Amino acid sequence: MTAPKKVVLAYSGGLDTSIILKWLKTEYGCEVVTFTADLGQGEELEPARKKAEDMGASSIYIEDLREEFVRDFVFPMFRANAEYEGLYLLGTSIARPLISKRLVEIAAAEGADAVAHGATGKGNDQVRFEIAAYALNPDIKVIAPWREWDLTSRTKLLEFAEQHQIPVAKDKRGEAPFSVDANLLHTSSEGKVLEDPAIEAPDYVYQRTVAPEDAPDTPEMVEITFERGDAVAINGEAMSPATILTKLNELGGKHGVGRLDLVENRFVGMKSRGIYETPGGTILLEAHRGIEQITLDSGAGHLKDSIMPRYAELIYNGFWFSPEREMLQALIDKSQEQVQGTVRVKLYKGSVNTVARWSDASLYSEAHVTFEDDAGAYDQTDAQGFIQLNALRLKLLAARARRLKK
Amino acid sequence: MTAPKKVVLAYSGGLDTSIILKWLKTEYGCEVVTFTADLGQGEELEPARKKAEDMGASSIYIEDLREEFVRDFVFPMFRANAEYEGLYLLGTSIARPLISKRLVEIAAAEGADAVAHGATGKGNDQVRFEIAAYALNPDIKVIAPWREWDLTSRTKLLEFAEQHQIPVAKDKRGEAPFSVDANLLHTSSEGKVLEDPAIEAPDYVYQRTVAPEDAPDTPEMVEITFERGDAVAINGEAMSPATILTKLNELGGKHGVGRLDLVENRFVGMKSRGIYETPGGTILLEAHRGIEQITLDSGAGHLKDSIMPRYAELIYNGFWFSPEREMLQALIDKSQEQVQGTVRVKLYKGSVNTVARWSDASLYSEAHVTFEDDAGAYDQTDAQGFIQLNALRLKLLAARARRLKK
Amino acid sequence: MTAPKKVVLAYSGGLDTSIILKWLKTEYGCEVVTFTADLGQGEELEPARKKAEDMGASSIYIEDLREEFVRDFVFPMFRANAEYEGLYLLGTSIARPLISKRLVEIAAAEGADAVAHGATGKGNDQVRFEIAAYALNPDIKVIAPWREWDLTSRTKLLEFAEQHQIPVAKDKRGEAPFSVDANLLHTSSEGKVLEDPAIEAPDYVYQRTVAPEDAPDTPEMVEITFERGDAVAINGEAMSPATILTKLNELGGKHGVGRLDLVENRFVGMKSRGIYETPGGTILLEAHRGIEQITLDSGAGHLKDSIMPRYAELIYNGFWFSPEREMLQALIDKSQEQVQGTVRVKLYKGSVNTVARWSDASLYSEAHVTFEDDAGAYDQTDAQGFIQLNALRLKLLAARARRLKK
Amino acid sequence: MTAPKKVVLAYSGGLDTSIILKWLKTEYGCEVVTFTADLGQGEELEPARKKAEDMGASSIYIEDLREEFVRDFVFPMFRANAEYEGLYLLGTSIARPLISKRLVEIAAAEGADAVAHGATGKGNDQVRFEIAAYALNPDIKVIAPWREWDLTSRTKLLEFAEQHQIPVAKDKRGEAPFSVDANLLHTSSEGKVLEDPAIEAPDYVYQRTVAPEDAPDTPEMVEITFERGDAVAINGEAMSPATILTKLNELGGKHGVGRLDLVENRFVGMKSRGIYETPGGTILLEAHRGIEQITLDSGAGHLKDSIMPRYAELIYNGFWFSPEREMLQALIDKSQEQVQGTVRVKLYKGSVNTVARWSDASLYSEAHVTFEDDAGAYDQTDAQGFIQLNALRLKLLAARARRLKK
Repeated sequence: MTAPKKVVLAYSGGLDTSIILKWLKTEYGCEVVTFTADLGQGEELEPARKKAEDMGASSIYIEDLREEFVRDFVFPMFRANAEYEGLYLLGTSIARPLISKRLVEIAAAEGADAVAHGATGKGNDQVRFEIAAYALNPDIKVIAPWREWDLTSRTKLLEFAEQHQIPVAKDKRGEAPFSVDANLLHTSSEGKVLEDPAIEAPDYVYQRTVAPEDAPDTPEMVEITFERGDAVAINGEAMSPATILTKLNELGGKHGVGRLDLVENRFVGMKSRGIYETPGGTILLEAHRGIEQITLDSGAGHLKDSIMPRYAELIYNGFWFSPEREMLQALIDKSQEQVQGTVRVKLYKGSVNTVARWSDASLYSEAHVTFEDDAGAYDQTDAQGFIQLNALRLKLLAARARRLKK
Repeated sequence: MTAPKKVVLAYSGGLDTSIILKWLKTEYGCEVVTFTADLGQGEELEPARKKAEDMGASSIYIEDLREEFVRDFVFPMFRANAEYEGLYLLGTSIARPLISKRLVEIAAAEGADAVAHGATGKGNDQVRFEIAAYALNPDIKVIAPWREWDLTSRTKLLEFAEQHQIPVAKDKRGEAPFSVDANLLHTSSEGKVLEDPAIEAPDYVYQRTVAPEDAPDTPEMVEITFERGDAVAINGEAMSPATILTKLNELGGKHGVGRLDLVENRFVGMKSRGIYETPGGTILLEAHRGIEQITLDSGAGHLKDSIMPRYAELIYNGFWFSPEREMLQALIDKSQEQVQGTVRVKLYKGSVNTVARWSDASLYSEAHVTFEDDAGAYDQTDAQGFIQLNALRLKLLAARARRLKK
Repeated sequence: MTAPKKVVLAYSGGLDTSIILKWLKTEYGCEVVTFTADLGQGEELEPARKKAEDMGASSIYIEDLREEFVRDFVFPMFRANAEYEGLYLLGTSIARPLISKRLVEIAAAEGADAVAHGATGKGNDQVRFEIAAYALNPDIKVIAPWREWDLTSRTKLLEFAEQHQIPVAKDKRGEAPFSVDANLLHTSSEGKVLEDPAIEAPDYVYQRTVAPEDAPDTPEMVEITFERGDAVAINGEAMSPATILTKLNELGGKHGVGRLDLVENRFVGMKSRGIYETPGGTILLEAHRGIEQITLDSGAGHLKDSIMPRYAELIYNGFWFSPEREMLQALIDKSQEQVQGTVRVKLYKGSVNTVARWSDASLYSEAHVTFEDDAGAYDQTDAQGFIQLNALRLKLLAARARRLKK
Repeated sequence: MTAPKKVVLAYSGGLDTSIILKWLKTEYGCEVVTFTADLGQGEELEPARKKAEDMGASSIYIEDLREEFVRDFVFPMFRANAEYEGLYLLGTSIARPLISKRLVEIAAAEGADAVAHGATGKGNDQVRFEIAAYALNPDIKVIAPWREWDLTSRTKLLEFAEQHQIPVAKDKRGEAPFSVDANLLHTSSEGKVLEDPAIEAPDYVYQRTVAPEDAPDTPEMVEITFERGDAVAINGEAMSPATILTKLNELGGKHGVGRLDLVENRFVGMKSRGIYETPGGTILLEAHRGIEQITLDSGAGHLKDSIMPRYAELIYNGFWFSPEREMLQALIDKSQEQVQGTVRVKLYKGSVNTVARWSDASLYSEAHVTFEDDAGAYDQTDAQGFIQLNALRLKLLAARARRLKK
């Protein structure tokens, strides 16, 4: 790879990406443009501007992407009830493509020939950042300093920082006991004290949800309204996508909802252990399932269920901007046209459960299902033929088995 | 269908199947053999013997099938992490094939030409009973009185009972407010007061789990040990399959674990609402997932996940004894050969969560995943090529898109 | 079912549906509207008008649906490369929904409360007709005389015809040696002389293709051009969908292409043997695959391949008008946006093979694949990391196996 | 990677692997053991021994693996009707794991720490060789000289050969016009004159099949007998697996069967064009489908069909020795228990078609399917209920659509 001339860096304002900023300039003698996004991680972004300026960024982008994030990434994904390996709500995975998209767009606007990120060479995020970038611009260079440089220990990093007058907050001098990623959908923690999956995660790891034991003793009911598969209102009040997720995060966090201790399979081939907190997302998934229960046809629902693992795997592996993810999305979105109505969920000490749901698009027919007289809605004798023809092939198999035994 | 000469009836000892017993004799002038199974439904079975005798059963079978039920039906199903429509643990579905199997076997032993069951013409159970029976004996007749007779109202049923001296317990004179099925895996309730899915289920519906609000204020930790994908010990104590499930039911029931309010799609085409309580099964699923997290390879796990919805649908629809269920079982069982080790779960006020897991067959490699120096276990530069080749096709797509736009 | 007042009958003009027309009037005293469609079966339709008039039809619809058939049914299906059970191109299955659609539309226009068809109670067509009709109008009655009447033998049918002055052509007095269905996509033959799958189909069964042995000794090359996955031109000449299929039928028929002798599984549970001739469709499938080879991304293609069997099964079983077929169609259509270009196929004595393909939307990159110097298009060292990370989990498995053996 | 001490090389005896042999010794100063397998590629192997000796191999293995190849690799794969991307019979893919298995076994026996192969860095074979090797021995080193050395042009290779006294046959002085791989299942050709997929493959590319135009003018019938899904006899004569495939190759080659011109997607991300000749395999696939048609249940068959693309992709990508391939194999093998009987196929000028099939395990029931009186085998009125319940959900959907429109 020839040296880049101008790089757009995904910049958090933290120590690591500050070191990267400086390293890029030092290593390549290139201009560095910083891009800092508000995805709901809950940090002030303006300090990042000051830092980037101090470090010599040639141009600084700070953007609030929360609405775009929820509307165009989180909500489409939740239409699929996506869970990776049965449990993980993909909070980190779904944020990466949006960041790459803006990196590539800013590179185009700035005439930059490269983008850079601060993900390590062991994780999934490098894959997600880079695959998304290449899918959007086949000629872009992607620089992953963690795979390139020789700053392979904490000591070396701090030395580099000192050498280049990068201020290091006191609490960053020692190593953090675990590593954190956060956005409006979730907070993930991994590494260090969490590395042994046989040892319970210490309480101080959790950042965004109270322990179920500390949650209110009284359950709280919440009503979520959907249109075309997306949440549009809470307790009857219409809200924007990001506002809805923010509100659900508050509710879920208060009731200790959405904690997950998981050992998962990374795309790069190893298992890793993560602690995830997805308070609002966990409520959203439960409620979305609740509204689908009455508005989605079984043929549609079973098809969706059958492709969900593949869809989730694609997002996890970084293939958001791929034809197959878009094909699956077309399938999923088609199914959501009448997924509308309201679900009441109960939040209580770590759990969220659907307790009621109603919709003008309901397919539930009390007339058909009732134990009472159904006035002819359903003819029970139909079941006879239904069973006979479903069983026919099995009878032929049983007859063969008997015949061959003789 | 020609009239049956001798019928084996799945007999609970309750009013409905007692009426069926008498009706079969009256309608067809045939002999009736009763079969009553202990599947862990929690009722005394000996009274059924007395009743069957009084009603004129020509032969009476009462059997404790709990171990067979858990060992050969429940546990194989849990190896798949089977959930129907994302949530239902198939507690009723999985019991039906075993009952049919014994009905057909008893029919062979007794020289009976038919079997009979007490399921209605609207539900799934008729399908499950009959498909299983036909798959095991292609020539057996199956009699489903609810689809045949004209006892279509409570009043007519009671009249028939009175007419034929069938004793009716006082509390059975009025109609039950909902309908119940129970076995060692779960209790389901449906119908009547539960028919409107917009109305919350009343507390008195739940029979086997305390309300989370009434569960202990202190979490309880439980350790479950697995071998070849099956639970074999609790807190270090080895137990038989049925004993394990019984113990987990106690634990789950005490902590309010395993309640589910679901609107599901029946195989016969309508939606229905059920309240399920699966205390032990819910713990078992969580723990099984926990042990798979460290012992199952990602290729194996993702394949399993992808076929799970189909497997669950087959069981739900009644196709336990079908070649395709057996093929999927072969696939699933193959995956479980090294699924062994111990999981610690935390039970607290309605939820169960894995908090730790360990195994001598663990695939988790701290050496590979560590944030610390990994002593060469993993070469980060490998990620570069991995990403480049995974992205290659997407680059070609992006280049085409750009080319075609010009 | 209450008696119908006015019925729209799918009427071919042949003896069987003429008997049905009369039987409906006799049995129910209802009005009968006839609907006769030209789907390319290759018969004159005007005689059907005369016959319908003579038999007392109250209204007569005769419509040329060939373009709609190919454009809205055949072509969308071929975008999926749909083959039922690996081989069958679904020629009968795909025609039924269109007929039902028009039956239901005409019923609405005519104020009819029922539709009727001439399919028997053993086949798939009854299912396809009726499911489609119910999916389009949940209140429509569907009358299937073959399941209802007592005209269960050839003799009885001819007696009924005689009794009601229905003219019987001389060659219809005896029984046909097999049963035929034809439309622009295919001709199927089944029954009678074909019933034993161990006996080769006699030559006279084939109606639309020459025997490969009688086909020209010289191969013929044909170039087919595609846009968005649909054929739009042959040998450079743009044509309408039905014209294209007609032309391909001529070419295929002449070269003996598209014969299939198949034992398949009917939806109603039994196996049946059919002889299919799909000359144009067989060419179209080959060419469509050819153009996809260079224009479809592998992720897109493999996803399509994986859902194809389900899509084909849905069409075979009669679920064209179902949410899940529409969802799969959305997925498939999404994949076809750049499936454009031209394929040259060689027709010769029963076979059709792609020999060349080109497209301005090609993803084939000679620069990447070449054995010659690729000027840096592809960095072979990337393969090292790609392989290492793909193998990592397998290494961990192998290490475990070794560890556990000790 | 530290330098290897002793390497087992997959050695063909040709120029390229001879250069590799010498290069390994020169580059690493290591011992080289050669392994040459007879997989039915149709070449004398003894000359390889002489060459290996001359080049200084420290130990020489020459083995006839044809029976193992067909019995343990080809036949299991054909049980699945595996076709990659709808058309490719995986002739190269399926041979690689066996070669790697022997390389690793010989390495263990010889105390070698590395294996080496002659596949380039652009293709699939490197991936297949290496993934298989790592899956069998996680600590083995794999050396891929084509990715390492600087002999990147024909000229440099010949210079190296000259320098090291490696004899170069005269016809190897110029470059071959395309590249060939062959074994008992197929011959593949790619590269050079084949690189433009818009240009027809010249006749001289084909090596193993006559042109259909040159095939006999008279069709030939062949009867193939199966047991448990594997071919066991031809025209009534029992034969070993490799003998059967050899015989089918003769028959197919003579009749021009099994030619394929394909553009496929490589695992490493690019499209490539190959010419494949799989004469015996093409016959085998057709016949296997034929016997499955009458002996495989539809539930089993449709499940098999649905996982086939994934199974084929796994083999293509090199994951033969993976848990998920083994899981799928367990599923497939389970389905084949009664796949037995005989199929008659017709070979004629490039095509092979099933014309008859029979089996004592046939599930085809003439009694059920007949157009004649079926003596009560099938009750046509059952179809009524079957259709009604299959349509019920669609009726509810249609009713909703109507309701929401109002």
